[in-house]
Parts: sequence; C-alpha cells; structure tokens
Amino acid sequence: MLLLRCQARRASTQRCLHNLLRYSSSSSNTHPQVIFSGIQPTGVPHLGNYLGALRQWAKLQNEAAPDTTLLYSIVDLHAITIKQDPAQLRQWRKEMLASLLAVGLDPKRSIIFYQSSVPAHSELMWILSCNASMGYLSRMTQWKSKLSLPDNASPLDPGPTSKAALKLGLFSYPVLQASDILIHRATHVPVGDDQSQHLEFAREVANGFNHLFSRSSKTHILPPPETILSPAKRVMSLTQPTKKMSKSDQDVKSRILITDSREEIFKKVKSALTDSIEGVSYDPSTRPGVSNLVEIMYYMDESVADSPKALTQDLRELSMRALKELVADTINVHIRDVRERYQGVMYGGGNGNSLGEIGEEGAGRARESAGRTMGIVREAMGLD
Amino acid sequence: MLLLRCQARRASTQRCLHNLLRYSSSSSNTHPQVIFSGIQPTGVPHLGNYLGALRQWAKLQNEAAPDTTLLYSIVDLHAITIKQDPAQLRQWRKEMLASLLAVGLDPKRSIIFYQSSVPAHSELMWILSCNASMGYLSRMTQWKSKLSLPDNASPLDPGPTSKAALKLGLFSYPVLQASDILIHRATHVPVGDDQSQHLEFAREVANGFNHLFSRSSKTHILPPPETILSPAKRVMSLTQPTKKMSKSDQDVKSRILITDSREEIFKKVKSALTDSIEGVSYDPSTRPGVSNLVEIMYYMDESVADSPKALTQDLRELSMRALKELVADTINVHIRDVRERYQGVMYGGGNGNSLGEIGEEGAGRARESAGRTMGIVREAMGLD
Repeated sequence: MLLLRCQARRASTQRCLHNLLRYSSSSSNTHPQVIFSGIQPTGVPHLGNYLGALRQWAKLQNEAAPDTTLLYSIVDLHAITIKQDPAQLRQWRKEMLASLLAVGLDPKRSIIFYQSSVPAHSELMWILSCNASMGYLSRMTQWKSKLSLPDNASPLDPGPTSKAALKLGLFSYPVLQASDILIHRATHVPVGDDQSQHLEFAREVANGFNHLFSRSSKTHILPPPETILSPAKRVMSLTQPTKKMSKSDQDVKSRILITDSREEIFKKVKSALTDSIEGVSYDPSTRPGVSNLVEIMYYMDESVADSPKALTQDLRELSMRALKELVADTINVHIRDVRERYQGVMYGGGNGNSLGEIGEEGAGRARESAGRTMGIVREAMGLD
Repeated sequence: MLLLRCQARRASTQRCLHNLLRYSSSSSNTHPQVIFSGIQPTGVPHLGNYLGALRQWAKLQNEAAPDTTLLYSIVDLHAITIKQDPAQLRQWRKEMLASLLAVGLDPKRSIIFYQSSVPAHSELMWILSCNASMGYLSRMTQWKSKLSLPDNASPLDPGPTSKAALKLGLFSYPVLQASDILIHRATHVPVGDDQSQHLEFAREVANGFNHLFSRSSKTHILPPPETILSPAKRVMSLTQPTKKMSKSDQDVKSRILITDSREEIFKKVKSALTDSIEGVSYDPSTRPGVSNLVEIMYYMDESVADSPKALTQDLRELSMRALKELVADTINVHIRDVRERYQGVMYGGGNGNSLGEIGEEGAGRARESAGRTMGIVREAMGLD
C-alpha cells in the first residue's frame, strides 16, 4: 500500500518512508543520515498536521538508525512572512513546542528547536541568496498562492490594495527554506507533496553552491537533500469537507486539535457535515463528509484495513450517528496519550525540564550543527 | 567652506560633519550617539577611499564625545553579491582590517569588525525583508548600475547573458545595508552622496518596523538614522582623469594605495596623464588631469588654501614636472605614517595584538551591541 502511494515523480531524488527506513538500517557503509523538517508555529496542531506530518516525524525518530541525526524545527522566521500578532505568536510557538513533545518527539534523541534561535539559518540564507536567480524565484508558486494571485502574476505587479503588494520576505522564502535544510547538511527531508517544488529548489541551490566552491566535484560542501515523500493524507474540514482542515478556518468546529478532550471530539464529530444517503460508503466526490470521516478513522490505524474503501465494508450498515460515534471514539483512543502528555509538558508536573529549558537545549545543539556547516562554508568562500 | 558644501537636500535628516561634531560635544541632554559605517573588503584602500571616507572615520573617532559609540564594519557579506575569488577575498579582508588600523582607527575606542562575524546582521535582514516592498526595491538604482543596466530595467528581465541575470542578493542588498545600521541602533551614518538613497531606504524600513511593533509612537525600537554627508571628494584616476580612481581598474598606475612607498608614489604621479598647456590652472572640464592633481594636493591638507582653485594661485607658474613632484611629495608626507603603521600591523612587531585577535575582539563587541537590539526586536515581535 505504502509503496503504491509513493510512486515518486523523481525516483532518483525521492524516497518513500518505507524505503528510507530499510535504507537506514543497512547503511553501515554509507554516511550517517541527517533528517530535517520544519513546521510553522500555528499553536496546537490539528488532526491534519498530526496525520500528515507529526506522527511520521515521531515514527522516523523511533525507527531511525542509531547514527541518524534528526532535527525538527519550529520555523518562526517563516511565520513572519505574513502578519502575526506578537502575543499570539509567542503563545503559538510554545504550544507547538509542547505539541512536538506530546506527539512523541524525544528531545534527548531529536534536536527540537525554534528556527529564530539559530542565527545561522539567516546567515546561510543571505549567502545562498547571492547566487539565487530572481527569475527562478519569480516562477515559484508559493508567494502567488499565499496572496491568492493567479499563476502568471509578476512579483512587481501592484497588488489590488497596497497591503497585498508583495514583500521581499514572502518572495525569497524558498531560499530561507533551502538554508534551513542545507545549514544542517540534511540528507533527507520529509515533506508533503505541495513542498516538492521547494525541495527541488533547495537541490538546485546546493548544486550551484558546490559547483562554485567545492574543491573537487566528488565532495559536496552542501549535500543536495533527498525528499522523503509522505503518502498523502488530506484531512478535510468537518464543516466544509471539500476544503482542507485548517487552523485559519474561523469555525473551531471545523477541526479537531490534538489536545481536544473526549467531549470536544465527540461534539465536533457529531456536528460534522455529512449527507442524508443511507448507510456508509466511500466516495470523496459525491460523499465528501462521510468519506472524510472514514479516511480519518482509517488513518488513525491503517492496520485495520487495506484502504478507506475497504474499511467501509465493515461499516456499510451503520447509521450516520453510529459512524460518528465510532469515528469519535477511534480518534479519542488514538490521541488521548498525546493529549495527556501535552498537559504534562505545558502545565508541568515537575518531573522534567521546562519548555524554556528544552527549547534552549535544542537551540544549543542546532547551533552546534549549523556552526559546523558555517565553518565549512566560510572556509570555502574565503570568509574566514 | 565645509558648511557651503554640505547644503543637504534634506536638512532634517542630514547633518554635515562639522555640525555633528558641534552637536556631539554639547549633547549632554540627548541620547548618546551611535555612529556606524561600512566599507567593502577590497584590499588596501586607494587615495579615493582614504580621502572620501577613511580619514573622516578617524576624525569622527578622535573628535567624538566620550559617550559616543563608533562602529566600523568591513562588509564582506556585501562583497559576495558579486563573484569573489575565495583566496583573494580572504587576503583583502585582512588588508582592509590592517588599513583601518593604519589610518588611525583605534580598536580600543571604535568597534572594528567583519560583518560576517556578526550573524545578527543577517538575522535582522531577514526580519526586515518581511516588510520590505518588492516594488520599492525594484526602483532602486544600485543593482542596475552594478549590472550596467539602464534605469528602466526590471529585476526580472533576462540578462544579455545568463551570467548577467539578476541574483536575489544584489537585488535585496539595500535591506542588508539597512540592517547593518539598524542592528546597532545607529543614530548617525557617514556616507558618500551616492549612498543617500540607501539611507533614505533604511529610514523607511526603520519607520515601518516601529509603526508595526513599537508600543508607543514616542519610542523607537529602531531609531531612523541620520546621514552625515561628507563633503564630496572625487579623486580621479591618474591615467584616465575623467573616471573615478578605482580598485577595479586594470592599470595599477591609475591609483595610489595608502601603502605605496615614496618611490611608487613619485613614479605613479610622474606618469599621470596631464596636458601640454603651460602653467597650472584649475578647470576640471578642460584640464581634468591637472585639476585632479591639484585637488589631491588640496584634499591632503585643506588648511593651505580655501579651495583647489585658490591653491593654484601659488602654483600657477610651476612646470608640470615641478607640480608632479610637489604633489607626490605632499602625498608622501601625509600618508607615510599610515604606510608605516600598516607595515607594523600587517607584518607584526610584537607590541600589540594580532589582526586575528583584533578582529575577534571587535566581533565580540559588535555581537554584544547587535544582541541587545535583537533582544528588543524579538520581544517586540513575540519571537522570545
């Protein structure tokens, strides 16, 4: 199943999770792997974040070879490419750090840190920007979709209002993202499908830098990273199941947070938009609401069936009410440990380091990792 | 004379050296001043660099109020916006540091540092870029003149060759320059006339940031810097006196370096391009070569006359050969201390810290200064 889903467009540079883990455990004659990924500080993650990325991060950590380094960053310098309220950003950063610990990331094993605590991310960004082409960047789609502009928009078009005029940070974002990866000489980056354009850019940037500054074509100063393509897990809004579940949706009932109580989960799932067709069947185009609930249930534990469709075989005679109760219960069972760990981390139990201490320790280790790369980069460029 | 020359276009934001020094010494009831300026690592400076900037830096240092902070940076992160040879860049950085000491900057009084040793310059650059308008940047002229493009060029035009295609670093350069100033909360920046557009941009950036993040309109998180406009001192090439003296000129006889020996100075001045008109007179348009020699002599010691033209009163009957000897001797007398100090600093005499130690000490003090600002910025933005 997993193998079927990860038919990567670029087999040479993308590697699915399954393959990666096999590769790690037999990598005695290769360089140790370095895995990097980042998530924006949007507060407590919802089920889409959890199933799409965070659960995989914990799995990668738990199944990694002993010599693999794992770095997970809360990318607050990316968050500020759009307007943020300072008090809310401060709170959201903390909540995201607590959530990463809650989903099972272990700060003794993985390096967990705020991007803004490691200045070398910005330092290398500047250096890479000196060789990044304006033309290439203007053809990337991220800034266009963030500003809801058409694909043929130019970065110099005046916006519909002066507020919408493009800022340099949003335009140059992919170079910071490349730096995030390259500053730790990451070999593998787990990302969603929507980020593969950015990973391709990061490889271009690395190759360009190596071409200019490596002493021999065999040594990479900055290794071009491989993509670990996650099997797509699109979790949809509970209230508008044709849209992705999102933190920015005004309606809090549209999403389940990984810290929601049993009662909140039941209430939200019960009020989820479905349809009046009798019985349960799987067809995202005609029955988006029901199919979304089935998918969520399937993603929670993929061992119970081969696919969401196969899962409906066992559910087909359930009433909508019974389906919703079953789905709510499944979610609750699978995330209650996460919820409990979150409470412990966020509100303390005394038996562990504070969030501040954990952030500082991660930052220190990330600064060491980045500092080694900056040393190599400075030496190669004559900035030493 | 000085006052006449500094009729600033923007009296409110520009202040000539003369006024500044008066202001400094009576500034007991104002905030202490912070003076920042930067120079690219182009190796040993020539007379144009010395007369146009470096001599003024030393003067500012020597006449500053005791509570004034002075920071002078070798801006190697700007140098890499165009292609550099790593070995040459490494050498040029050292030569520039030795030169700054040679012209009289005192590392105990002024903070002298390599820009790339202080990561916060790049950190704040990223932060500021999140609010810097692409449109404003595309209208700036620096990137156009560096690529020899017409004033109406767009940053997305494909270059005449792929090499000439615009890189992000060259385009976003003014934001790093704003950061260089704002990261130290500099109040005053001595610059040449060609940089006043960039200072205006730095003020815009500071005001924009303060508007977004200051708690009250009375407190500036990032003070908008004032320009200290230097009286223009255009030192021209000795071999092509209608062009500025430049490090990039292929012909080494076109420029005098501040480390040139007496013999080198005499040889270069003797071979300077002049004309066959009898006697010495001052008219840059018809007699550029002679006028350049007169100007250099005048700039070396402005106390001898009121202007280059006035100086020619005493010289008008000299032969070209006699004028050249007089000019060469004047240059030699005025820069021989600089040359001797340079040798001492660069090749050591044992009685002082090494260049490496001086660079490290400056970097440490600059990191402290920048760190204080980053603390305020982080707190204001919720990145703490």
